[in-house]
Amino acid sequence: MKNVLDRNRDMAARVRDILSARGIRMINMISSPGAGKTSLLEVICEKLSGEIRMAVIEGDVATDRDAQRLKKYDIPIVLINTGGGCHLDSNSIDIALREFDLHSLDVIFVENVGNLVCPAHFDLGENFKLALVSTTEGDDKPIKYPMLFREAGAVVLNKTDLMDCSGFNRQTFISDLDNVNSQVPLFELSCRTGEGTDAFMEWLKLSISK
Amino acid sequence: MKNVLDRNRDMAARVRDILSARGIRMINMISSPGAGKTSLLEVICEKLSGEIRMAVIEGDVATDRDAQRLKKYDIPIVLINTGGGCHLDSNSIDIALREFDLHSLDVIFVENVGNLVCPAHFDLGENFKLALVSTTEGDDKPIKYPMLFREAGAVVLNKTDLMDCSGFNRQTFISDLDNVNSQVPLFELSCRTGEGTDAFMEWLKLSISK
Repeated sequence: MKNVLDRNRDMAARVRDILSARGIRMINMISSPGAGKTSLLEVICEKLSGEIRMAVIEGDVATDRDAQRLKKYDIPIVLINTGGGCHLDSNSIDIALREFDLHSLDVIFVENVGNLVCPAHFDLGENFKLALVSTTEGDDKPIKYPMLFREAGAVVLNKTDLMDCSGFNRQTFISDLDNVNSQVPLFELSCRTGEGTDAFMEWLKLSISK
Repeated sequence: MKNVLDRNRDMAARVRDILSARGIRMINMISSPGAGKTSLLEVICEKLSGEIRMAVIEGDVATDRDAQRLKKYDIPIVLINTGGGCHLDSNSIDIALREFDLHSLDVIFVENVGNLVCPAHFDLGENFKLALVSTTEGDDKPIKYPMLFREAGAVVLNKTDLMDCSGFNRQTFISDLDNVNSQVPLFELSCRTGEGTDAFMEWLKLSISK
């Protein structure tokens, strides 16, 4: 296991060098299955694809369903099917990068495999990890799955429109998240209704242009 | 990896022998984080703990929150914290079994780590895997995470009370599940409202008494 992680770290450093030399940012999106990674990418494409040159690496255990959902935005997409594998690694990112024209990109979004545990352990060469969690999963995720939230550069709480009918306790969530990572910015939004997405887009644009 | 799986399979056979010799059934509950494994256990405890002698093995990456939620039912519980590990293995089950009085049990429920990918690969010595999925995760889970649904002895679709406001397409879900596993029984229910839980309890009692 140590060997695997060491090799992954070395390749992540290489990916980071390649992207940094071209001024491209990379954001590693991690969440449980169904928390809304693809939905958030749809909102990002709709709101920002006119002003920011973006590409997506889609990681999935099986099928191309998420990639299909993004096709209409006419951005470069590379699909990685892990064939049962529970996370992306930096080697698969290195290979995926060869499919893009790196001279014409500002940012690459990586949609990791839907899994709140394993992807948190694997550096892909990203600038930061974006942790997504949805209100319908319950308010206890930061404290029960602390690795990801400790490492995240930002947290998005999705499905705020379902907060009340899910019995989600916002104060518990915020207080637990603060205990795990008191520095991380939190964005509460609903990809379905659009509520809260503008504030996140403003922050995202800033973080991409840095 | 093959070595790890081989050793896990051997120990799972040992666990299966131990339980089978005492007429104890074991059910391995697997789902995404927040789909409702603990909530379903609460319903099971409330409805069946008077007539069936049950115990729970709680698998969690961190914290004892789920075990705490079940404490009020006065059943034997063993907590396994994986310390970042993404699934339970048969060795940890073998160790946990030593904490129970195996002469006074009909069934052991194992609540696996919240993860739709890795736990599907590890036989724990269970009689069957119970796959849980909730409507709020979206209708595409069986086709996107097929390993678990292919292996499952039963599927529970939880949070039916949130089906409409989640935009969940029931026909898509059922048709995808049928493509992945046409034999598996499906129970649609809501742990919150109780809707559909009686039919599942009847089936569960039968499957335990077999």
